[in-house]
Order: sequence, then structure tokens, then C-alpha cells
Amino acid sequence: MRSPWTATVLTILPDVFPGPLGASLIGTALDNGTWALHTIDIRDSAEDKHRSVDDTPAGGGAGMVMRADIVGRAVDAAIARSPDVPVIYLSPRGTPLNQQRVRDLAQGCGVTVLCGRFEGLDERVLEARGIEEISIGDFVLAGGEVAACALIEACVRLLPGVVGDAASLEQESFEDGLLEYPQYTRPRVWEGLDIPEVLLSGDHKRIAEWRRAQAEKLTKARRPDMWARRKP
Amino acid sequence: MRSPWTATVLTILPDVFPGPLGASLIGTALDNGTWALHTIDIRDSAEDKHRSVDDTPAGGGAGMVMRADIVGRAVDAAIARSPDVPVIYLSPRGTPLNQQRVRDLAQGCGVTVLCGRFEGLDERVLEARGIEEISIGDFVLAGGEVAACALIEACVRLLPGVVGDAASLEQESFEDGLLEYPQYTRPRVWEGLDIPEVLLSGDHKRIAEWRRAQAEKLTKARRPDMWARRKP
Repeated sequence: MRSPWTATVLTILPDVFPGPLGASLIGTALDNGTWALHTIDIRDSAEDKHRSVDDTPAGGGAGMVMRADIVGRAVDAAIARSPDVPVIYLSPRGTPLNQQRVRDLAQGCGVTVLCGRFEGLDERVLEARGIEEISIGDFVLAGGEVAACALIEACVRLLPGVVGDAASLEQESFEDGLLEYPQYTRPRVWEGLDIPEVLLSGDHKRIAEWRRAQAEKLTKARRPDMWARRKP
Repeated sequence: MRSPWTATVLTILPDVFPGPLGASLIGTALDNGTWALHTIDIRDSAEDKHRSVDDTPAGGGAGMVMRADIVGRAVDAAIARSPDVPVIYLSPRGTPLNQQRVRDLAQGCGVTVLCGRFEGLDERVLEARGIEEISIGDFVLAGGEVAACALIEACVRLLPGVVGDAASLEQESFEDGLLEYPQYTRPRVWEGLDIPEVLLSGDHKRIAEWRRAQAEKLTKARRPDMWARRKP
């Protein structure tokens, strides 16, 4: 039997997991074995009685840096366990994550995610182990753990059977390079505001055209960068 | 006494919180009252015995949409509680979050975050309540909860006293429109790889110049978009 899609998380805060990944659809899929989650405590690779993982930055400066030797051992333990999955370090310096990369990761056999804390990681371990650096967005977190939850959740929802109605994965933001059209549901009138008439027309062709036009309008207005990247 | 910076989260999964926000520096700051966290269960605004919050999309399509009337009541409860804070709906259709927006939010008195689930929210509630739509990145999550954790964590770490050494907030990615320079720490040689010589020179001017050059090189290579946006 093929093993399930597996996320391995290297962290000094293993108790954070599964956390939000234990809730709702993603948590149900974890419970029923559609995917698996392992955590590796980076402190298990420390050598002193305080289980220290960090030291002061070479060249001076504020904060602390995670040591290459200690993180390297933790990464090697993860690679030994899951040799065929990409190792990703989440950091605001990385390549921005996008839905295409999420789709690629979901189609593989899993992902190993390295969570930094403090001022980050000794650069040598990233180079020596060929670790890919990915950013979830242009802001700074206290550590990689919440970013790891985001990356893993984005992947797991694309695994077969996780979202009940697979069709709902086909009409969402970033499919076809567009943001999603606006949605409406009952009540038909709320605080004097109507659902757009076309959506109640029963004319599927007009509805599809209206939604497409709305998605294009929204993308142009909010994300000129995304609109410019679209292939004609 | 001034009340602390307060995050109010509207969600159908209140048990997810504080979750990762209860850990490490952010959790310590929550425990000592530097910031406060409230959750509002959107299902408390439902009216049927199943506490339903969603219905089928007007115009057809897969999935379910959260109702304007029910979400509207939950939003109104949050606004009544914290009238002076921005209300943000986290969605991949929103304006991309960046560190400048995080700084602005951290300087205010808090944030109210609306977490969607299913296919999203009836558009009318966003319009009627003037809710700001923000995205943490160009990928799709199962719901807004992990994105809410990211937004709140990014803000809370900037509150006075949360990060022990405030200087470490001054030399990080997005300050000065650059990604952060690489970091190194002991051991001096690891697997045959040395710490760059300049960092061991004790020459603070050379070190600062080297770090600046590294940050510029990294930003140009990885984020030509960010490099192009820099003011000269």
C-alpha cells in the first residue's frame, strides 16, 4: 500500500501541531489517513543540557541565529525518513508561494518544512542541503510555524477526497489566472440589497458570462500585476 | 488604563484559537496582557437548530456560501465590541498583505478578522459593512483561520515589549525595501564551510557594507518586483 502524502515539520515548537491542521476538513483527512503529519523537535539535535539551538550572529547584531550543525542534524533526520520530498525553509526572503507551486507539492508524496525562529538560520545549512526557501507573503512572522500550517493546509485540501465536491476546486481564485467572482446566497433581499438579477435568471450561459466578466473586472482592479501576467 | 491591542476573530472554528498564537513570545504576550484575543462563533448568529451559516450559491455552482444576514449579525456584534478597529476579511481575492500594512495595524488599537469557510461569503455583507478584503498570498486555504493567525502574529510581534530586543525589528526583511542579509553563527567551520571572513574581522563598517551588498544582491535576484518598487 502506498503511504499517504506526508508533511514533516522541523520546529522547536512541536506542540503547535497539528493545531489548526487538526480542525475541519483538513483534520478529518488527517484522522482518516488521507495524509500524515510528523514533527521533529529541532532541540532533540542539540548537545547541551539546555537543549540550545542558537548562538549570537557572526559579525554582531541583535538576536540569535539557529546553528547549522544542529539544524543540519534535524534536517538529515527528516531526509532519512522521507528521502523523496522537497525540503522547504519558510522565510520572508524566499520565493513567493503561489497556487501552482501548491498544486505541484500536492501531487508529490509530501513536503518537509523547516520552521525558523529567532533571527533565522545559519545560511550554510540552506546551501549545504539544497533547501528551497519559500515565503508565504511580504510580512514577518515570529517563526515559521504558522506559515507551515498555511503551506500544508493549502496542499492537503487539494488531495483527492479531502474537499467533498471536487468541482469546488475548479472555480476558485488563481484558476485561469483570475480572482474568483463574487458569490451570493439566500436571502434574496438583505437590508434592501438584491442578489444580482442575472444569477436568478436560470440562464446558465448568461450566468457564466457575468461571472467571467466580474472575475476579470476584479482582477484588473485589485491585482494589475496578476492581470498583466495572464497568458492571452 | 488603556485597553490592550485586541484581536477579535469571527469564525465557525473558535476552538482553533489561540492555537499557534498561544505559543512562544506571542503566547507569553497574550498571557501577560500585552494583547487580548476574543473569538466570536459565527454559528451563534444562526437561527435554526443545526446552527447553519451557509446556503447554496445563487446562480448555481459547487459548494456553499456563507449567508449575509448571519455573518452580518456576527460582524455587528464585533463592531459593537470594538468600534474603532478595522474589520478585515481574509480571502485570496483581497489586497496582498505587506509589512507596511502590518505596521499600521500594530499601531492601531487592534483588528477584527472575519474568517470565511466553504466557497466564501455573500458579497453584500462585505459591501454593506465596508469590510476590507486582504490576502496573505496567492494560494487558497480551506478557511481564513490560519491566515488570521498569520495576520495577528505579524502584528503582535511589533507591539512594544513582545520581542525582547527591539533592535531585532530594525534589521529584518522589508525594512528599507530589501530582503534580509544572510546570517551565520558558530561553529566557525561546519562541514568544511567557513563563515565569511568579513564577519569575523571586527570591522563594523566593512560588515555593514557587506551585509547591505548581500541584501541588495538577494533582493535583485529573488524579488525583481520588490527591487523595482524601491525608492532611490
